[in-house]
Amino acid sequence: MRTRAAVALEAGKPLEIMDVNLEGPRTGEVLVEIKATGLCHTDEFTRSGDDPEGIFPAILGHEGAGVVIEVGEGVTSLEVGDHVIPLYTPECRECDYCLNPKTNLCQSIRSTQGQGLLPDGSTRFSMLDGTPIHHYMGCSTFANHTVVPEIALAKVRKDAPFDKICYIGCGVTTGIGAVINTAKVEIGSRAIVFGLGGIGLNVIQGLRLAGADQIVGVDLNDDKATMGKHFGMTDFVNPSKIQGDIVAHLVELTGGGADYTFDATGNVKVMRTALEAAHKGWGESVIIGVAPAGAEISTRPFQLVTGRVWRGTAFGGASGRTDVPKIVDWYMDGKIEIDPMITHKLSLEEINHGFDLMHEGKSIRAVVEF
Amino acid sequence: MRTRAAVALEAGKPLEIMDVNLEGPRTGEVLVEIKATGLCHTDEFTRSGDDPEGIFPAILGHEGAGVVIEVGEGVTSLEVGDHVIPLYTPECRECDYCLNPKTNLCQSIRSTQGQGLLPDGSTRFSMLDGTPIHHYMGCSTFANHTVVPEIALAKVRKDAPFDKICYIGCGVTTGIGAVINTAKVEIGSRAIVFGLGGIGLNVIQGLRLAGADQIVGVDLNDDKATMGKHFGMTDFVNPSKIQGDIVAHLVELTGGGADYTFDATGNVKVMRTALEAAHKGWGESVIIGVAPAGAEISTRPFQLVTGRVWRGTAFGGASGRTDVPKIVDWYMDGKIEIDPMITHKLSLEEINHGFDLMHEGKSIRAVVEF
Ligand SMILES: [Zn+2]
Ligand SMILES: [Zn+2]
Ligand SMILES: [Zn+2]
Ligand SMILES: [Zn+2]
Repeated sequence: MRTRAAVALEAGKPLEIMDVNLEGPRTGEVLVEIKATGLCHTDEFTRSGDDPEGIFPAILGHEGAGVVIEVGEGVTSLEVGDHVIPLYTPECRECDYCLNPKTNLCQSIRSTQGQGLLPDGSTRFSMLDGTPIHHYMGCSTFANHTVVPEIALAKVRKDAPFDKICYIGCGVTTGIGAVINTAKVEIGSRAIVFGLGGIGLNVIQGLRLAGADQIVGVDLNDDKATMGKHFGMTDFVNPSKIQGDIVAHLVELTGGGADYTFDATGNVKVMRTALEAAHKGWGESVIIGVAPAGAEISTRPFQLVTGRVWRGTAFGGASGRTDVPKIVDWYMDGKIEIDPMITHKLSLEEINHGFDLMHEGKSIRAVVEF
Repeated sequence: MRTRAAVALEAGKPLEIMDVNLEGPRTGEVLVEIKATGLCHTDEFTRSGDDPEGIFPAILGHEGAGVVIEVGEGVTSLEVGDHVIPLYTPECRECDYCLNPKTNLCQSIRSTQGQGLLPDGSTRFSMLDGTPIHHYMGCSTFANHTVVPEIALAKVRKDAPFDKICYIGCGVTTGIGAVINTAKVEIGSRAIVFGLGGIGLNVIQGLRLAGADQIVGVDLNDDKATMGKHFGMTDFVNPSKIQGDIVAHLVELTGGGADYTFDATGNVKVMRTALEAAHKGWGESVIIGVAPAGAEISTRPFQLVTGRVWRGTAFGGASGRTDVPKIVDWYMDGKIEIDPMITHKLSLEEINHGFDLMHEGKSIRAVVEF
């Protein structure tokens, strides 16, 4: 079949909207009609050429929602008409990682996924001249139709709006999951969130959901405070307006340090501040943000010996097929909010404008609707 | 009263054996006759002048065992004749830290202890000319008699030999506790221990006690392998004899990385190796060793984002009054061994020779008996 897609032909160039060939699903694969997709910083990281592992040409996009159109041989958990969210972290429920409750990093199709291929080592997308087009993070949601392995699709309820729940495919789950799955924040905790972009706001609402007593937001841009408060932030700190040491200020503000701190900036210096602002004896700091290639975190080991814990999270520690449908339920039940974070709606033709909005800091999330 | 003590008169000088004055116990304090004390690297760190927080003159020593001679007013949990192990990490059972199961770092007397004073802000020791002598880590076990707060004494069974259980006051508990309290190692785990000195050997026997399947010991000195094997080590690695990357070698040896790694070297480069040799997805690395002032650990945040956890431990995460008596029981029941680690017995007059043995790497533990 043919479908319409935004193709990243080479690093650093705008995406090109074009018709592409799409083969039907093979064994264990599913053909999905994408109804909506968010634009994430990770897509831009690859598009721009900053990602040393970027492969071109490729169809980017990893934050989508859609409907099953056709299932390949052996697919048992999904049928035509099911609503699904593609998962860049699959859940095979069989590998050593899936069977270990301490991690969500399913490795069953990791090597092919990292090479922009489906598990059998080939692509389903190609140019009209036959040139193969690579998949991206196993999802390729910047296409009206895509083929995804069954183990990388979460089946979700049919009454949930695609243009909102697509965001659960990355940002929402990453932020809320960092609180609930990775940090396991307890009721009454004090927390600090560094960076009030899309991920940080979802960390904040995750903290509210978990019953945190104090939720400090830290950002260099005062304009971020309004949205932070909307999602549950109790205190705002702009480090550029603090006299003296930011760690000391945050420790004072949280009565000795926070029980949990979260870095959603990707800045390694901020990651250090986040660790050191955690409470002596038991404070845990979670790295969510992706740092530039080669950047390193550092601290004095004394920080750990006196009881702080340093950890990280990917896809919010969520096992997607199990956890994503629950997060959709939370949204539909009003336990979490997504609507105010979807600040822009675009057509596929306008997708490059979405990246402009991202760079200008004007959007929290721009969503392309098909 | 007067007692015999090894006094650190100034940084970098040998200890001087002399008679000193010792006042009786005040409210909440206990007079203890020390029967045996180990010599720990931490004592030497302070004696040598390397410890920037060292205070002189002082009576060092923090790894002792003895008998209660007199109790001060208000002391309810101990009586004359009780056998006790002094605790440099006290357990008041009332402060925010004691009431939080995530930490053992009781803060109730921390500030005075750090200043070499008892909780009322004074010293019980003085020179015969009246010059006050500071306490050390709240213990000062390099004296035949010492005064210790009630909350810093673990009451232990009377049939346990002082010259062995004194080691439970620091090294044994630090090593075994890092495994059991801090890492919470599960049966069947794979682990790597960096540094096969006194702490490392106790980590190894802690791992054996916890039911670890693979216990890799790493040390630059091949001579350490024999003792490592005695305590349960299953594999020995000398990094100086490995071709190529030590992390890759250890990941290969442990089938993908260790579930738990422990640094008992105090070397920040080794701490990084320990973290990176932990298993993707769930491996945890525990820092036990004390690094030189100013030294920093570092790594790429990717190591944490892909599931490794970095933590530290002090006194093995043990709440001393509760946990130390249990460890004494384990020793008496044969669950753990101490005897082969007590390599040298000295009189108080020979204490400086004990530090020589430490520097020459000839001792695991030298113990002074009174
Ligand atoms: Zn994303
Ligand atoms: Zn799996
Ligand atoms: Zn010690
Ligand atoms: Zn306490």
